[in-house]
Amino acid sequence: MPEVHPNTDQVIADNREYTLFSWSVQNQTHPIHMTGGKGSYFFDADGKSWLDMASQLININVGHQHPKVLQAIKDQVDKMCFAGPSFATDVRAELGKKLSEVTGLAKSFFTLGGSEANENAMKMARLYTGRDKIITRYRSYHGATMGSMSASGDPRRWPVEPGIPGIVRVFDPYMYRPPMGMTAEQWEEGSVSHIEEVIQMEGPHTIAAILVEGITGSNGILIPPDSYYPRLRALCDKYGIVLITDEVMSGFGRTGKWLATQHYGITPDIVTCAKGLTSGYMPLGAVIVNQEIADYFENHFLSGGLTYSGHPVSLAAAIANLKVYEDENLFEHTLELGKHLGERLEAMKAKYACVGDVRYIGLFSVLELVKDKATKEPLAPFNGTSPEMGKLAAYLKSKHIYAYTRFNMIWVCPPLVITKEELDAGLDAYEEALALVDQMILGPVAAD
Amino acid sequence: MPEVHPNTDQVIADNREYTLFSWSVQNQTHPIHMTGGKGSYFFDADGKSWLDMASQLININVGHQHPKVLQAIKDQVDKMCFAGPSFATDVRAELGKKLSEVTGLAKSFFTLGGSEANENAMKMARLYTGRDKIITRYRSYHGATMGSMSASGDPRRWPVEPGIPGIVRVFDPYMYRPPMGMTAEQWEEGSVSHIEEVIQMEGPHTIAAILVEGITGSNGILIPPDSYYPRLRALCDKYGIVLITDEVMSGFGRTGKWLATQHYGITPDIVTCAKGLTSGYMPLGAVIVNQEIADYFENHFLSGGLTYSGHPVSLAAAIANLKVYEDENLFEHTLELGKHLGERLEAMKAKYACVGDVRYIGLFSVLELVKDKATKEPLAPFNGTSPEMGKLAAYLKSKHIYAYTRFNMIWVCPPLVITKEELDAGLDAYEEALALVDQMILGPVAAD
Ligand SMILES: Cc1ncc(COP(=O)(O)O)c(C=O)c1O
Ligand SMILES: Cc1ncc(COP(=O)(O)O)c(C=O)c1O
Repeated sequence: MPEVHPNTDQVIADNREYTLFSWSVQNQTHPIHMTGGKGSYFFDADGKSWLDMASQLININVGHQHPKVLQAIKDQVDKMCFAGPSFATDVRAELGKKLSEVTGLAKSFFTLGGSEANENAMKMARLYTGRDKIITRYRSYHGATMGSMSASGDPRRWPVEPGIPGIVRVFDPYMYRPPMGMTAEQWEEGSVSHIEEVIQMEGPHTIAAILVEGITGSNGILIPPDSYYPRLRALCDKYGIVLITDEVMSGFGRTGKWLATQHYGITPDIVTCAKGLTSGYMPLGAVIVNQEIADYFENHFLSGGLTYSGHPVSLAAAIANLKVYEDENLFEHTLELGKHLGERLEAMKAKYACVGDVRYIGLFSVLELVKDKATKEPLAPFNGTSPEMGKLAAYLKSKHIYAYTRFNMIWVCPPLVITKEELDAGLDAYEEALALVDQMILGPVAAD
Repeated sequence: MPEVHPNTDQVIADNREYTLFSWSVQNQTHPIHMTGGKGSYFFDADGKSWLDMASQLININVGHQHPKVLQAIKDQVDKMCFAGPSFATDVRAELGKKLSEVTGLAKSFFTLGGSEANENAMKMARLYTGRDKIITRYRSYHGATMGSMSASGDPRRWPVEPGIPGIVRVFDPYMYRPPMGMTAEQWEEGSVSHIEEVIQMEGPHTIAAILVEGITGSNGILIPPDSYYPRLRALCDKYGIVLITDEVMSGFGRTGKWLATQHYGITPDIVTCAKGLTSGYMPLGAVIVNQEIADYFENHFLSGGLTYSGHPVSLAAAIANLKVYEDENLFEHTLELGKHLGERLEAMKAKYACVGDVRYIGLFSVLELVKDKATKEPLAPFNGTSPEMGKLAAYLKSKHIYAYTRFNMIWVCPPLVITKEELDAGLDAYEEALALVDQMILGPVAAD
């Protein structure tokens, strides 16, 4: 249970004096001092509980401090806390087998996070095909190391460009805003045929892989049309291109399935994952490859590694975490509750002037906010913010609702263990905030 | 205590069937099934103890299963297992402050491993200076992600080149084999003046950073002459270049000090670390920057991050691990035992025809093996192996001595907790193996 911390001012001051916070200007950070959590809530140093509508960074899928995962970690720590990456271990066998089972792929290579998973996936695709280029999408984030950052289309890559050579970017299945003034109908066709045109122009024999997020996460929950993945899969087969899906955010129950692509009936050649793999209890990422690629590395050198590949405690945490998904039927719960979430989001879109679009699958969802539904003018510019977005965020913070906002969007991605009542309470607060935004864009009278 | 595992054949088979091993051709891997450890020993599934003369990957500095580090991990797990990177936490304040204290630098940015630490250090140096190029050394390893791999001179980068733009490589303070036929005396002068010449040719205003390992580890414990670091420091000051030392392997007690550069009386601008920071008990790396760079990011955007930056359990493990170093006087022990190790290595060099050079500082040491002391012809080629090196490795394995060998070198890097008796037992086995190598290169008679 939350308790008041005796010394929080000093702790916050020391955090700011001695450590650097990611993706920020340091003198503009106002960190919350976190002291614990339980289920859908975390606790701050003032003894307050926060409803975690973002699952931290959309990763703590089984919720805060799940006793079974904690116990599994402690048991492994007592048994064997570390083994180098060249050793066989019990947990490595068990998790490798389990990941093969749930993905339909063959072998796992273990990393620490999503960035390193994508680095290694791209490397493997290049070694396997003997080709260089990687096709990725503009509205995507694949990580912050040089390879994964370059693969990202996200503006977070701008400050570190030129990045690595060989990345070719294409447009996304962003059906609310198709590129070049196309209709959604045209773009359903165009979003894949566009990729084939790019492949032709680049030379099919130069393309090692197409790397896409299973479902795009931090660039706005972009849910592809049903035809997208089957056509993309066919394109890869046609040209011998490796299809890599980055399921770091969309995988492991977030959409109610192990992999987002399982909603579309296709199997990628390589899957990368992290986040929901352990629900963040321990750092872990994985690259899971199909049989052909695994076979290739049977007699070819796999030129990659890291000191903590296959860290036993991380693997034990993942095993326990996956077991919680199954034992507690969390994916069924996610699909079930996801329906209710979808209904509420649609109602919000109908009710509030500022809600331009809502996109949702499982407990992976976003509201895209606009100044005007007809023109779709965003409530904040691409890669920017606005007073309205600031107001929205500040209101939720004042209610101790922890939410992820970026550009003109606000996400709804609570832990998969959240109850209907907790979710409704969170969404009620979102609605109060949206009403405030409506007042700002319509003026107080019109919003009544 | 070691126990016989009931099912080891299946575990090893599953490890090979379902997981990929780093830096290898999969069908040539013969993993040892590790089941536990204690101090300088780890246990295999046959109930055998192995003396760990490599500290796994030169990282488990406090030895296997140190009870105090295990306890700290379990306590943190119970308290709060995860907090996102934007939160302030108790452990973040404590470790940040401690790292500032022991390095003389200002602020830490937390990563998961060494690769990501170097990625972020290079990024920060580029943002801070507004310059692009990074000078690194040929005989170096900085990690396997694209940026860190490109920064490495090590042949492990070859399969993934061209890598990132902007890396400029220079030669190393490798006094046993100076480049271009120079004498060691010439090269003591030349190893730094060479770098200044390169800076001139590249344009000083284009160089963001010089990135060097504190003391080069996996490319052969290359100990610079005493004048090297003060001159390198002066060079960086002269041209406004950020000096980054990668202390992933050489830091945190390995040489008997917090940082290898503390032997030379200089302070770098940025230090990267991992491995000995937690002794591998939890994945953790850090970038520690000086006050000027910290100040820069007070009002400039730090464009980097990762989901597990500041993972509470990793931070707690590091805090406990650093406390063990201090409470058990492990650095004093390392310096003390390092003297004895040095004496034994010198005696081995005098005694065995195949020992061309020995290099050591603290418990960080290597024997460089040759076919002929006069010509210095290596016992195995650069980036290759040989029957003699194979023999050496196989012999030690047969005696359950775990050692790190690469090219024509064999390392002696045991946990810092190793006793004199344990170390001597290990070195005795090395000597038996060297005698076998002498037999191979001299013929059985001459070696007697
Ligand atoms: C889709 C996706 N891929 C990769 C990453 C990078 O993972 P990590 O932060 O663990 O390096 C993220 C992180 O948010 C992500 O959302
Ligand atoms: C000097 C040095 N830097 C960086 C690294 C990379 O660290 P990691 O394997 O944790 O990514 C290593 C690993 O061996 C290293 O020895």
